[in-house]
Amino acid sequence: MQFTAKELAERLDGLLEGNPDVVVRKLAKIEEADEESVSFIANPKYAVYLNTTKAGILIVSKDFEASGTYHSVLVRVEDAYTSFTKLLNMFSGSDSKVSGVEPMAFVSQKAKLGKDVFIGNFSYIADDVEIGDNVQIYPNCFIGKGSKIGDNTRVFPNCTLYHDTIVGAHCHIHSGTVIGSDGFGFAPQKDGTFQKINQNGNVIIGDHVDIGANSTIDRATMGSTVIHKGVKIDNLVHIAHNVEIGENTVIAGQTGISGSTKIDKQCVIGGQVGFVGHLYIAPGSQFGAQSGINKSIKTPNKKWNGSPAVEYMDSLRLINHNRNLPEVEKRLRLLEDQLKSLLALKND
Amino acid sequence: MQFTAKELAERLDGLLEGNPDVVVRKLAKIEEADEESVSFIANPKYAVYLNTTKAGILIVSKDFEASGTYHSVLVRVEDAYTSFTKLLNMFSGSDSKVSGVEPMAFVSQKAKLGKDVFIGNFSYIADDVEIGDNVQIYPNCFIGKGSKIGDNTRVFPNCTLYHDTIVGAHCHIHSGTVIGSDGFGFAPQKDGTFQKINQNGNVIIGDHVDIGANSTIDRATMGSTVIHKGVKIDNLVHIAHNVEIGENTVIAGQTGISGSTKIDKQCVIGGQVGFVGHLYIAPGSQFGAQSGINKSIKTPNKKWNGSPAVEYMDSLRLINHNRNLPEVEKRLRLLEDQLKSLLALKND
Amino acid sequence: MQFTAKELAERLDGLLEGNPDVVVRKLAKIEEADEESVSFIANPKYAVYLNTTKAGILIVSKDFEASGTYHSVLVRVEDAYTSFTKLLNMFSGSDSKVSGVEPMAFVSQKAKLGKDVFIGNFSYIADDVEIGDNVQIYPNCFIGKGSKIGDNTRVFPNCTLYHDTIVGAHCHIHSGTVIGSDGFGFAPQKDGTFQKINQNGNVIIGDHVDIGANSTIDRATMGSTVIHKGVKIDNLVHIAHNVEIGENTVIAGQTGISGSTKIDKQCVIGGQVGFVGHLYIAPGSQFGAQSGINKSIKTPNKKWNGSPAVEYMDSLRLINHNRNLPEVEKRLRLLEDQLKSLLALKND
Repeated sequence: MQFTAKELAERLDGLLEGNPDVVVRKLAKIEEADEESVSFIANPKYAVYLNTTKAGILIVSKDFEASGTYHSVLVRVEDAYTSFTKLLNMFSGSDSKVSGVEPMAFVSQKAKLGKDVFIGNFSYIADDVEIGDNVQIYPNCFIGKGSKIGDNTRVFPNCTLYHDTIVGAHCHIHSGTVIGSDGFGFAPQKDGTFQKINQNGNVIIGDHVDIGANSTIDRATMGSTVIHKGVKIDNLVHIAHNVEIGENTVIAGQTGISGSTKIDKQCVIGGQVGFVGHLYIAPGSQFGAQSGINKSIKTPNKKWNGSPAVEYMDSLRLINHNRNLPEVEKRLRLLEDQLKSLLALKND
Repeated sequence: MQFTAKELAERLDGLLEGNPDVVVRKLAKIEEADEESVSFIANPKYAVYLNTTKAGILIVSKDFEASGTYHSVLVRVEDAYTSFTKLLNMFSGSDSKVSGVEPMAFVSQKAKLGKDVFIGNFSYIADDVEIGDNVQIYPNCFIGKGSKIGDNTRVFPNCTLYHDTIVGAHCHIHSGTVIGSDGFGFAPQKDGTFQKINQNGNVIIGDHVDIGANSTIDRATMGSTVIHKGVKIDNLVHIAHNVEIGENTVIAGQTGISGSTKIDKQCVIGGQVGFVGHLYIAPGSQFGAQSGINKSIKTPNKKWNGSPAVEYMDSLRLINHNRNLPEVEKRLRLLEDQLKSLLALKND
Repeated sequence: MQFTAKELAERLDGLLEGNPDVVVRKLAKIEEADEESVSFIANPKYAVYLNTTKAGILIVSKDFEASGTYHSVLVRVEDAYTSFTKLLNMFSGSDSKVSGVEPMAFVSQKAKLGKDVFIGNFSYIADDVEIGDNVQIYPNCFIGKGSKIGDNTRVFPNCTLYHDTIVGAHCHIHSGTVIGSDGFGFAPQKDGTFQKINQNGNVIIGDHVDIGANSTIDRATMGSTVIHKGVKIDNLVHIAHNVEIGENTVIAGQTGISGSTKIDKQCVIGGQVGFVGHLYIAPGSQFGAQSGINKSIKTPNKKWNGSPAVEYMDSLRLINHNRNLPEVEKRLRLLEDQLKSLLALKND
């Protein structure tokens, strides 16, 4: 993979300043770049590297001010960060597309595979599974009976989809993720034991959903646990039975969502956040890391923080008040002393 | 699978009101039910659906007041929720029992298998493993040397049991769960490095234990990490070396229990709770979500909350006091101003 | 495996008191030991067991005072705990070394294997992988294209290493751990959707690194996520893209570290701790369990606690002040009442 400065400028719809024939073979951070690298300045604080970087080509914003002497050919673009994400795709590495069913995969005779499918060795495709075109199932995955996977979706190694799981098109499911495990439902008995409540529902995942590594999404007791299209879920996230996550909601690592909670669309949830069960969360809500949410939120587009969560600005105030408690103690003592003197005086 | 209203009433020991010949083929939520569905009203807030649901049959409590016109045949039972959990079992889906050793499974010649065992493809049963009757080991599991699994236990895909793990009868171990990994033990050295301390013990799990997906239970340094019978553990829970969990204790998702802590029986632990090491927790203790427990608890049957945890009612008071801190600040200022005036007056 | 008292004393460089020919076959806790056990007293609170234990041999510190009658042969050592960790190695169980490529493993023709390597059944070694001498890859692992694993490293069952992952020598990677999954990077679009940003970097792990079960370490967007030598990581830990962890830092279970944060060497991080992204943490920093860190730390060797974290001693003060809030409320009311009386008096 290599590009000339001229080719890059054309692909990024940018303006070239310098030698159009310079060739780059890789993408690098500005402080690590060499002559064969293309790099970029999206954040002004990296502008200081302009005069020292060895990068063959630098992608910068159209209004970037290049002062002093520098070595790199510049390509000026509308938005350097967007161009950088395009470059990431152009230079994507050895993670290339493969197809075919490897000889040590197990595919049930009753499963249906689309065109150009890849099934890696030691993956298990059970009865009545339907797999769309261009789907890639890496080694050591289990796809349970009756599950369906939409076109162009990729399931990375060591994933488990329990029976009757529905996954949309263009999804990425990273390694170790488990979809469709039983919800955590037990009926307390009089003798102190708990009886398992069968979990008869399933999990439905829309198109363009990304799920990180080692996350878990439980099947519904009845009906479906639903992840709507465009949702992005990070690593080690726990989504309990009968939860529903609205379109384009983003959930960072190690967050947990308890049973039957419904989170509406376009929410942004930080890491290690916890939601209790049976809540409704309005669209566009945002939550700081480690928040704990124990009440439904009906007003959309607000920011929340803390455990139990309050509105974000209030949480900052509470944190400050809290840190000020030793000072409050001193002021209280002073008041008490002063008042005691006054009262003593009065009683004299 | 289908049932007439008469059959359902008999099975649930209920009283039939309406056409005994109505046939249902599935179980559904009341708001999603159609003519071929049986549904139920356990929570009074769902009673509003009585007059609009299309459900062929409705399970209700014996004293439910059915007013207005409605379409469904009613079956009156002692407790609608208990009947619902029975229906979940009656209508359980395609997750049916399988048996036999699939051809691409690996079973050591030195392993002993019980009757009617299922071992899925790509599962690895090491030397000296003993597997009881009716055990189901789904694909892609690893059962380490010398491990024992009791009758009727199910191990779902992609689980790992390290060597010498003992699992009781009637357990469910969900996908991705790891049992018997090394405890986190390292001896600090003078040069700043840490030397691994061998973890020679094992994990022992009693009968009727359920463990969710992607949880981890570490083997003991010496002796055993013990999960007693009837314990229910959710997803992504971390149980460290030499921990002991008492009978019928319930642990929700993403909770972590540090080394050598002993939690007694019948405790209820919320999600994302953390226990430091070497604690003792009395039977019947309950913990709110996100609690942090750093002291042993000797009095049984109390509720705890917060981080560090205090008694539940105290934690609610502290939360309220905390939220009231801006008000405290105002009152303090007013007092200071008033006192200042008084003192100024006095000094006049 | 068995040792005489004489042999043990020699191996531990200890002083023997009693019959040198006593034979032990196992290591046990003092309260569970029998005649064939060696046990130890490292913590004074276990000294009470001296007169009742059945242990054949007891390891004690050189200055241990043995009063009353007792049954065991004593071996006096410099440090009983260090000797105990040596004993753990001497008595390590059935987790013995194996070698060879099992017949149902898949090893690409383009992969290079060192000497005395073990590759378990159902493990997948992709193209261009390089595996050092004495490496053990247990069953059901996936080692992606171009990855390298150093000498003597052990990868336990059901692990996933994505393409281009570099792992050093003498590492332990426990089951279910995922290394090299895509970082959580998405570019927000004007229509509310998020576009995936390709993650072209990789993960580099130094020598003598231990990683627990079901942890996840994401590949870098560009460049590398780096875990330096001697780092110890517990179970269910989340390490995001472009994070760097310095030498000998220890990270307890369920902690999460957000993107691009750099933690320097010799830090000690408790369980369930969260770091936001793009921080720098100075060497030797220590963090209490459940801390939340949202600011860089530039002064080394300090202890931190709480969420948001403050210095450890301050956090203890704040916790006390917080618990004292009901008392503050009472004192405020008393002051208000007293002042009200005073003011009333004055106005009379």
